[in-house]
Amino acid sequence: MPGEPATERVRDLPDVRRERLLMRALQNRLLGPLVRRILGPQRIVEKGMAFWSARLVLTAVEAGVCTELADGPLPEDELRRRLGWHPRAAGTALDALVAAGLLRRDRSGRYANTLRSALFLDRTKPSYLGGLLELSSTRLYELWGGLGELLRTGGPAAAEEQGEDEFFAALYRDPTALREFLAGMTGISTPEATLIAARFPWKRFGTFADIGTAQGALPVRVALTHPHLRGLGFDLPVVGPVFTDYVSSFGLDQRIRFVPGDFMAGPLPTADVVSFGHVFHGSPERTRRELATKAYAAIPPGGAVIVYDAMTRPGRVDNYFSLLSSLNIMLETREGYESSTDDCVKLLHDTGLQRIEVRHLIGPTSMVYGFRPGRLPRS
Amino acid sequence: MPGEPATERVRDLPDVRRERLLMRALQNRLLGPLVRRILGPQRIVEKGMAFWSARLVLTAVEAGVCTELADGPLPEDELRRRLGWHPRAAGTALDALVAAGLLRRDRSGRYANTLRSALFLDRTKPSYLGGLLELSSTRLYELWGGLGELLRTGGPAAAEEQGEDEFFAALYRDPTALREFLAGMTGISTPEATLIAARFPWKRFGTFADIGTAQGALPVRVALTHPHLRGLGFDLPVVGPVFTDYVSSFGLDQRIRFVPGDFMAGPLPTADVVSFGHVFHGSPERTRRELATKAYAAIPPGGAVIVYDAMTRPGRVDNYFSLLSSLNIMLETREGYESSTDDCVKLLHDTGLQRIEVRHLIGPTSMVYGFRPGRLPRS
Repeated sequence: MPGEPATERVRDLPDVRRERLLMRALQNRLLGPLVRRILGPQRIVEKGMAFWSARLVLTAVEAGVCTELADGPLPEDELRRRLGWHPRAAGTALDALVAAGLLRRDRSGRYANTLRSALFLDRTKPSYLGGLLELSSTRLYELWGGLGELLRTGGPAAAEEQGEDEFFAALYRDPTALREFLAGMTGISTPEATLIAARFPWKRFGTFADIGTAQGALPVRVALTHPHLRGLGFDLPVVGPVFTDYVSSFGLDQRIRFVPGDFMAGPLPTADVVSFGHVFHGSPERTRRELATKAYAAIPPGGAVIVYDAMTRPGRVDNYFSLLSSLNIMLETREGYESSTDDCVKLLHDTGLQRIEVRHLIGPTSMVYGFRPGRLPRS
Repeated sequence: MPGEPATERVRDLPDVRRERLLMRALQNRLLGPLVRRILGPQRIVEKGMAFWSARLVLTAVEAGVCTELADGPLPEDELRRRLGWHPRAAGTALDALVAAGLLRRDRSGRYANTLRSALFLDRTKPSYLGGLLELSSTRLYELWGGLGELLRTGGPAAAEEQGEDEFFAALYRDPTALREFLAGMTGISTPEATLIAARFPWKRFGTFADIGTAQGALPVRVALTHPHLRGLGFDLPVVGPVFTDYVSSFGLDQRIRFVPGDFMAGPLPTADVVSFGHVFHGSPERTRRELATKAYAAIPPGGAVIVYDAMTRPGRVDNYFSLLSSLNIMLETREGYESSTDDCVKLLHDTGLQRIEVRHLIGPTSMVYGFRPGRLPRS
């Protein structure tokens, strides 16, 4: 029919005829590459099969391949011995890690770290950023196996199947595991904490309280960048020793202290600025409103509340990783989800905060902050 | 020290000083983006976290999202109803599929297939290529969770944990599941079969036998492209009805027949050309040599043997997917692996084949073929 788009006409062809047309074009030496490029499912297949590549990277990080290579290149047999790997698959996996860009092979065939993997995937360095990858290897990979069930039932795979509370209960009973887990969280949070330290107007404030602080990635970054600030990290009592050690390692004991408590129960500690990092995303909207209201009560007139999460940004071209993060927290919790920055602005506004700003940080993460009306009292 | 490369000098810095340097650079508005780009772990993290995206795509293909959209765009609630999806995560997942490029949203907010997903991810069309993705969703994703164990023990996750033989035994007992599985294999094999039909010198031959033929993807492609050829597909008896139906749907019954048998036991059927597609990779070298020797005995002087698999190609820049395929078959089988094209050339040469050629097909797949000495008898 004239006027109809070509795709509709292709669609109306009987399947066998369309397939024959497509196959004939694919077999043609000139047309083939073009047709494959335009219509080929390669990109979809690659995206769907990316779990092979991901699993390789995660397994290598969990096994500590780059940590074993920290002192220099090693031949395959020696590296294999240190990792406790069997000869059948080790060489193939190591060559695949070279192809993935995590390792390189030197002229004598020994495996070595790239500069990037030496900096970020050596577990003994404070710049280690493998926390999310380790957590993914040991926990999230399996959790995402339950995505189909989440879609069908709306229920989280974690809470039902593997015991969400059980996971954290076990973590809180095991100080070493807790320390490693929280260090991993710091690895994830450090880049965004660095940007929050740079991009929020800290100069006018004197004190801060970071709610659900974990190891204290944000307090440390903020205190290192702004020597005039003092603050605290607020989290469950069990987190205390890990927080204190981390803060001490930067010589910040005098300026940052730990306050034990449960942000779901009771008031929040007072400060000029109260921040929530990856806290809101685990709760339903009513809880987020309660938390924002408690934060409003904890700051003076002129004080500020900061919320940062992997929020989607309306009108942004690529919200892919934010949407995936939302599915992740849905898999982790019964009522969690990632909101849009618009919804977060509205929520903070409803609480009474003013002059609300949205700032993109890094990857999927954005921060939203607002100010309580009035003027900050002179300290 | 003068003369030493800069990376060595950065490496010799105490960790805390290096981290501070890096953090200071990251916080700098001008240097930050540059440092993140050069040294940032973003690419590693993205590769490691790609299982989120992969799982989304696999789950959507398994759920038949693009099949439900085959008749036109649907609003969220109607699509959700057809898929049996719960409202909690459905909208987020569908928006993420739009971001992944599998779906689009039309002006009225309804979800629709892209041309690519309509062609290749609608299960009712013969051009459906979701077989590998469905198999990945239901089986391989979980299997790859055992990569760490494969590396440590050399044992396949499939055979020990999930029962490799059990999987196929169950498949052979269930005609519907077998038909779907084999159709999936055809989806995977069709692009490479199309290229083998185009790139092997079929003109000089009269007959072919495809060993481990499954639904008959290669026989059908070869017969459609070369009307002078007749051939057969050789596989276990249970595969027969599925093969015959597929061949009939192309009107090729008169030229392609099914021969039941087990290629591991007894001789192979005779033909001018004997082919093995993704057969060698499941066996150790000694079995591959036995198969090649049986194939040599099954062809006349001047006849040919074709082997195609996800072989690594020495000297090629990117063997990544071949190496990953090798890990996959190691996870699937006790003794399988993907060889290099060089090893395959040597193996065919040792069997007595001559004028051996290597041709890259598509993605990780290459074919190696050679000819038995002598001249093909006139038929």
